[in-house]
Amino acid sequence: MDWVYNVPIKFFDYDLNQFKDRLNNFNENILFIGSKRVINTFELDVSNFQVIDESISNPDIHLLEKVLDKIKKPDLIIAIGGGSSIDLAKAISALYDFKENDILNLIKNKIYLDNTKHIPIIAVPTTAGTGSECTKWATIWDFDDCKKYSIDADFLYPTESWLIPELTLTMDEDMTLATGLDALSHAMESYWSVPSNVYTRVLARCSISIIHRYLPLALNDLNNLEYRKQMLMGSFFAGLAFSNTRTTACHSISYPLTMMFGINHGFAAAITLFEVLSRNWEFVKEKDLFLDAWDADDLIDIKEWLDDVSQNKLHLSNFGVKKEDIPTIVEEATTGGRMDNNPIVFDKTEIKNILLNNL
Amino acid sequence: MDWVYNVPIKFFDYDLNQFKDRLNNFNENILFIGSKRVINTFELDVSNFQVIDESISNPDIHLLEKVLDKIKKPDLIIAIGGGSSIDLAKAISALYDFKENDILNLIKNKIYLDNTKHIPIIAVPTTAGTGSECTKWATIWDFDDCKKYSIDADFLYPTESWLIPELTLTMDEDMTLATGLDALSHAMESYWSVPSNVYTRVLARCSISIIHRYLPLALNDLNNLEYRKQMLMGSFFAGLAFSNTRTTACHSISYPLTMMFGINHGFAAAITLFEVLSRNWEFVKEKDLFLDAWDADDLIDIKEWLDDVSQNKLHLSNFGVKKEDIPTIVEEATTGGRMDNNPIVFDKTEIKNILLNNL
Repeated sequence: MDWVYNVPIKFFDYDLNQFKDRLNNFNENILFIGSKRVINTFELDVSNFQVIDESISNPDIHLLEKVLDKIKKPDLIIAIGGGSSIDLAKAISALYDFKENDILNLIKNKIYLDNTKHIPIIAVPTTAGTGSECTKWATIWDFDDCKKYSIDADFLYPTESWLIPELTLTMDEDMTLATGLDALSHAMESYWSVPSNVYTRVLARCSISIIHRYLPLALNDLNNLEYRKQMLMGSFFAGLAFSNTRTTACHSISYPLTMMFGINHGFAAAITLFEVLSRNWEFVKEKDLFLDAWDADDLIDIKEWLDDVSQNKLHLSNFGVKKEDIPTIVEEATTGGRMDNNPIVFDKTEIKNILLNNL
Repeated sequence: MDWVYNVPIKFFDYDLNQFKDRLNNFNENILFIGSKRVINTFELDVSNFQVIDESISNPDIHLLEKVLDKIKKPDLIIAIGGGSSIDLAKAISALYDFKENDILNLIKNKIYLDNTKHIPIIAVPTTAGTGSECTKWATIWDFDDCKKYSIDADFLYPTESWLIPELTLTMDEDMTLATGLDALSHAMESYWSVPSNVYTRVLARCSISIIHRYLPLALNDLNNLEYRKQMLMGSFFAGLAFSNTRTTACHSISYPLTMMFGINHGFAAAITLFEVLSRNWEFVKEKDLFLDAWDADDLIDIKEWLDDVSQNKLHLSNFGVKKEDIPTIVEEATTGGRMDNNPIVFDKTEIKNILLNNL
């Protein structure tokens, strides 16, 4: 039995002024998570809210403890930013009522799972890639121990997602590319993932067809709001797809690339996309519709598009990785819940081949 | 402000045996709506349920009154059939607690709108076209007065939709085509409708790309379960799209064609599809993605596909309509909530032209 829960998110499509009006009209006790840079750039009035305005990238256990200690419980969290701000919001929502306990232990043992007093979240992405605005999980890092943890519960789907194209205009070309490729990886990996089904594949194909058409356009015209809106939509549908299936080999292999070499997550996931696609091809369902979504006749067309859009950037050597680093990467490239979600579980030899082909 | 509520339907994809198991495991007080033909063909055990097993086509006010009078209030309704069975389920859900009153008056004045005691519905379509399994409205006819009424409330979204490809195998070629074209009309009309937005257009394009690829395949191989499953998916996504936007000129013009000449609803809606598309073309958004979904270079490709798939059936003369009937049709072809939902509100002259071009 193959089943899907339709993600219960209300999605709103605002322009910047409507968004500010909405912010001004809240009367609840709100925790606002968003960087000073975003608040200043867009002249947001957050004077009525509790505010966490540090610039957050990969929220870790120490930051989480500090925040939980400092804030009083809000009725609602509004999280604006890339995936990291929204992830922090989810962690607060899940853990606030247990904050007297050891947080790491709570996370490791999923003690938050039956939390009926979680805090609703409005998620407002400033990038078009992470999909965090429509997933039910968050990543919290433990850099002391070089580990990453998932907080994961059905109640963590944001109650509302607000997609506001103007907020994504601050991304430069490199960030637009990296986040667009992250979204594309979510869609592609969801498509061939073991739990994929006829419904999630429709969502993934939607996302692919939008990103295929609009990512090149957006990269050539970074201030075009219509292209930015389409990329938010491409990322949102990728999010809806992989929120049902999770990701696979590419994300599994990406983690050591980010952890050891600081490669931006989107590039790290997309570097192996084509090598994994060609190995998984025999397991790809509805091949005709998949190629239609790519407007492609065969896999070569997809490879050419990836090379073109990335300006041949998707090689490890472009990020300072050398041939002799590969064995160390291979040792860390098999992540539970990712690699075993791929239709083929690649062994170390095969992971090495994948990486060598992308040097 | 352009907003969308993600339809809160749980969608399940069962095979016939899983479906029977599920039916056997209900302990609630259930009202089962499904024809004798369906119950017998698929050997469904409904002995534990209240059952309405007449063959229902276009449920009218008398049938509704009779049923409301006869049944005791169930905890859950399972409705299996085309749109009509599911529509009857929705009418019962909305109106049961008011059944001592004049039903027609309740419907006309929408007195059911605040009903907090409505009955949850599991919708199980046996055709792939109506989309009734994911909309929040039902059509009830008053043949005494030649009128149709909508019952419409947010609580009328089915709680669950079960999509079971085997149940659609009983459709012959003609019914497969008619219902497929109905789904296609929902997707197309939603796409160019006035309230369409960037999100509903993604859903509509999904539906178009699936129907474009699988309707011809299904028509050539009626027993192919994979094709049937895809058509259920195409219809479901069309339903998700038009549940947010409603339909437009084609549906508006279709009602007198069905009422006066008995033309099957799917054919009646699709007969004007191309004429309306070409007139609406300048208002069609994201034209590239729209044509991608059709795998088309231009509108001519779409026209050819429609002619091919329907074997040139989409002409009024094929359904016994003569040139001299057209003025009478035109008089009844402007339906409120449909024609004014089209980007161009066609006047009588233009409706006449549309019909003449499809004679």
